[in-house]
Amino acid sequence: MKIAVIYGGTRQDGNTEIITERVVEGLSVERIYLKDYKIQPIEDFRHSKSGFHTVDDNYNEIIDRIVPHDILIFATPIYWYGMSGTLKNFIDRWSQTLKDSQYPNFKTTMATKRACVIAVGGDEPSLKGLPLIQQFQYIFNFIGISFDEYIIAKGDKTGEVLLDKSALFDAGQMKNRLKIKISEEDKINGFSSTETKELP
Amino acid sequence: MKIAVIYGGTRQDGNTEIITERVVEGLSVERIYLKDYKIQPIEDFRHSKSGFHTVDDNYNEIIDRIVPHDILIFATPIYWYGMSGTLKNFIDRWSQTLKDSQYPNFKTTMATKRACVIAVGGDEPSLKGLPLIQQFQYIFNFIGISFDEYIIAKGDKTGEVLLDKSALFDAGQMKNRLKIKISEEDKINGFSSTETKELP
Amino acid sequence: MKIAVIYGGTRQDGNTEIITERVVEGLSVERIYLKDYKIQPIEDFRHSKSGFHTVDDNYNEIIDRIVPHDILIFATPIYWYGMSGTLKNFIDRWSQTLKDSQYPNFKTTMATKRACVIAVGGDEPSLKGLPLIQQFQYIFNFIGISFDEYIIAKGDKTGEVLLDKSALFDAGQMKNRLKIKISEEDKINGFSSTETKELP
Amino acid sequence: MKIAVIYGGTRQDGNTEIITERVVEGLSVERIYLKDYKIQPIEDFRHSKSGFHTVDDNYNEIIDRIVPHDILIFATPIYWYGMSGTLKNFIDRWSQTLKDSQYPNFKTTMATKRACVIAVGGDEPSLKGLPLIQQFQYIFNFIGISFDEYIIAKGDKTGEVLLDKSALFDAGQMKNRLKIKISEEDKINGFSSTETKELP
Repeated sequence: MKIAVIYGGTRQDGNTEIITERVVEGLSVERIYLKDYKIQPIEDFRHSKSGFHTVDDNYNEIIDRIVPHDILIFATPIYWYGMSGTLKNFIDRWSQTLKDSQYPNFKTTMATKRACVIAVGGDEPSLKGLPLIQQFQYIFNFIGISFDEYIIAKGDKTGEVLLDKSALFDAGQMKNRLKIKISEEDKINGFSSTETKELP
Repeated sequence: MKIAVIYGGTRQDGNTEIITERVVEGLSVERIYLKDYKIQPIEDFRHSKSGFHTVDDNYNEIIDRIVPHDILIFATPIYWYGMSGTLKNFIDRWSQTLKDSQYPNFKTTMATKRACVIAVGGDEPSLKGLPLIQQFQYIFNFIGISFDEYIIAKGDKTGEVLLDKSALFDAGQMKNRLKIKISEEDKINGFSSTETKELP
Repeated sequence: MKIAVIYGGTRQDGNTEIITERVVEGLSVERIYLKDYKIQPIEDFRHSKSGFHTVDDNYNEIIDRIVPHDILIFATPIYWYGMSGTLKNFIDRWSQTLKDSQYPNFKTTMATKRACVIAVGGDEPSLKGLPLIQQFQYIFNFIGISFDEYIIAKGDKTGEVLLDKSALFDAGQMKNRLKIKISEEDKINGFSSTETKELP
Repeated sequence: MKIAVIYGGTRQDGNTEIITERVVEGLSVERIYLKDYKIQPIEDFRHSKSGFHTVDDNYNEIIDRIVPHDILIFATPIYWYGMSGTLKNFIDRWSQTLKDSQYPNFKTTMATKRACVIAVGGDEPSLKGLPLIQQFQYIFNFIGISFDEYIIAKGDKTGEVLLDKSALFDAGQMKNRLKIKISEEDKINGFSSTETKELP
């Protein structure tokens, strides 16, 4: 299984990167920094007869980098209780790719992938970051990605995330599970499993 | 009381605009189409010694248009279960304005305002749009804006929102309450009231 | 289609009942007042060898009344930002019925039903009642019930709900849709539809 | 600082108890098993002229045990994506105590306390338990309790929670922080702090 990290943040070496690197340290991963790309906001031509227009930016390069990977780690600072606008613009554009004849299998390809989310915020993220996790859940369910796990970490000034011991432990646990997935190449049940065997 | 509509969508005459215009029809409002502005994603220098850099875009023009208004209507399509990336980028940049010596009273000014949200989505918005409403709640609480009310409407293809009779009724109700606010110039208790008198 | 209203409240003629009766006025419905029944909290023997014990209360009578109906309206005051403890105890016991040899088809039977929720609260219910709606969504998804629609209304003192014009309008709309369902006897797509055709 | 654990579950030695005992092992705590008490559902007479009636059950004994403690640990299995009906009935009754002349300082007393939540569920609790955490947040905010932290653990059959390593680590962390609180007797900022110093 091949792993890509999609970095949504804009701060070099920020808290989000610090904890995410704890997760992927020593693993072979592709790092995609969205801030290094020009990503136009979606122009919504889903229902226009002419369809979507070709957009002059680097969005498709990112898609091309993501497609070959099996596990996607979405790593974003929590800005204003949501993902970064940069990451949001990137995901918004999936609507275009879903109708893009260049990527006829986009949805089925994405539906084979697994996802982890790492989100770092300064203002009570374990409470106020919950709507963001629910949003990711809906996003992944729609596109068919299995939502394996998430970490919400607390950090404001650079380095503060290292004080969040629970998050650091979870990072170690996520790393261990990634190693197992890489070695086993097996499908492990994630959040998106449709069948629940046990009572709630 | 002066009203500004902040449009986060990218589609001309889309569902979001259709229902929002029902709300403000006949009222004197300032319409701000974010899509007509260049808004850079925030570069997070909150904790950098040098502070934020001057950004070469139109963001401050939007702030200048918003500041004089008392009621802000945030009107956004629901893209991927959240606000549009364009609107998110706009709000993300508030973090910069909060530290901008050009706007020394930004937070206290914003804290005098009231807000309404109008969000239109195609995929079960009355359920899957709930995290977005919670996110707005946290956003407004942080900056001090009173969250007066919201409408979640259902619509996918242009015009479909006109089939959502409950949302249309709510639009009429919102309009009526806006009229009262304009005439009374009084503060009406909104969601952000810190004191709750009745038992939950 | 046959309709049952499951009342979770404890106040006679309270706001929850007032608005719910607006919905079902003139329709043939079965009214089940949980407060009139003795419902023991679940004792969790799901994983015990001996299984669940027979419980000396009226719970099964309620199940027997519910089973023949196609549409269930769960009407509850919002107490402490959730459903009433009485309604919760009733739903908790479903775990027992799911393993009860007296009701071998409980899950498949429930999975043919449709549900509406009517929830009335005094403290910003349109915001602080959202987690309750999400909880119902998970409950219905688990058991297989289609979650057709919900109304969140505001009301504290008896009769106050009549001031919530949006909720009253929604009550009229819900009534209209119930009439159509009764006449058509058709399945209408609700929240639980697994296939989403349009982009989010 | 004195600690009370309020157990909402009905299963002896279940997963909720296993992980909670990890947290409080070696600490001096009062254990309150709600299942050992008779707790009537609230009868809502908040707005009745005659007020609430005296209820013939053991509810007040529980209140008397809770009042002297500074930190309350609410430990509940996640039944149907919410707290147990037993715990819900207990909290519902707070509305009565808030108007009870026997407890004239109930709200101010509760507002001096701090709370932790430990919730254990079998069906994707880290996602589907989030509405429950939000509900607790609203409950604590209303009554004025500081919401310090929570643990969501996964477990179905008895003992399964011991496989949730992240939750076990968090239990150890919670224990460490409880020790510090006991020794320092200091107020530590929890979730309910009204002032947020850092940007979101």
